[in-house]
Amino acid sequence: MPNKTPIKPSVLSEEIIADTAIFRIQSQKLKFSNGVERTYERLVPKGNHAGAVMIVAVNDQNQVMLIREYSAGTESYELSLPKGLVEHGETIFDAANRELKEEIGYGAENIEFLTEMTVSPGYMSYRLQVVVATGLYPERLEGDEPEPIEVVPTDFDLAIEYANGNEITEARAVAALYMTRELKLSREDSSDSGLF
Amino acid sequence: MPNKTPIKPSVLSEEIIADTAIFRIQSQKLKFSNGVERTYERLVPKGNHAGAVMIVAVNDQNQVMLIREYSAGTESYELSLPKGLVEHGETIFDAANRELKEEIGYGAENIEFLTEMTVSPGYMSYRLQVVVATGLYPERLEGDEPEPIEVVPTDFDLAIEYANGNEITEARAVAALYMTRELKLSREDSSDSGLF
Repeated sequence: MPNKTPIKPSVLSEEIIADTAIFRIQSQKLKFSNGVERTYERLVPKGNHAGAVMIVAVNDQNQVMLIREYSAGTESYELSLPKGLVEHGETIFDAANRELKEEIGYGAENIEFLTEMTVSPGYMSYRLQVVVATGLYPERLEGDEPEPIEVVPTDFDLAIEYANGNEITEARAVAALYMTRELKLSREDSSDSGLF
Repeated sequence: MPNKTPIKPSVLSEEIIADTAIFRIQSQKLKFSNGVERTYERLVPKGNHAGAVMIVAVNDQNQVMLIREYSAGTESYELSLPKGLVEHGETIFDAANRELKEEIGYGAENIEFLTEMTVSPGYMSYRLQVVVATGLYPERLEGDEPEPIEVVPTDFDLAIEYANGNEITEARAVAALYMTRELKLSREDSSDSGLF
């Protein structure tokens, strides 16, 4: 890992320039350490949640629980991983378990932190926590989806093929599946007593 | 791949509710096939570009050209892959080559399509093209960065370690590095006469 620590720009001013039900846009004027000034726009949190979590849930048959639901952004049905917002007072593990119950109808006995990702660091402050869930058991909570989510249990190796093809397009789901495979392989190599 | 084709919701109405220098937010009222109506907000294109491209550039020493630059969204310096907007009249390959010259000071003799990704399909229409570039040669074009971008040529295997750790957090860069490794491995297995 490169060790050089760059000097961060200083914030000259910042202002909320749009604020809708979902999005809050901030304009931020920066001065870089070389004296150059620039104004950026970025999406900042609305404050009504405590982050977000994505879940790689693997059942006892080594299937990963993919979901397919309508994505309003791309106007298409997308195959991806369950995810949702962390509510105030919840841990990411609480939130992951609740989202699983709402989105796929299962709870998880074991939930393990995998990684933290950014989605578009140039334009969004957003950071996503990713967890791996195992020990699944049937339990459903009512979600707020407009139509039932299609749950697609998929052999783990096939899910990796989907991630490597164009069946799964969402970058963070692709990345999460590959990283889970690395974790599984390292556990198999070391006979680690982890979740897999 | 699941074959069932869901019935897309119909658009009852849509309206631009915010429009800044960078972001355009649309409110869209949908009616799902089960009759449920919902209003979504989503980021839609400003129309001043023809998409975006991310580049996995690998030099003759099997190093991938990582860059580190300031990310205004997360307010941090992030290690990631070069990327940029495709200008009107450019192919994604033209844009990739231009961005490489601007961001890392190299052109590429060979640029190959890798995949198309979405970043946040629930909330953004945005789709990103990812390419692999090889046959690098020194050539610099002036970019519009506020300060010089740090170029970090990194052994490919180490870059995968960064992707699997927390040194690279941007999901699409993590996904692109893993997918490039899959491509490299498949080429090695098959003695394919591709770029690697």
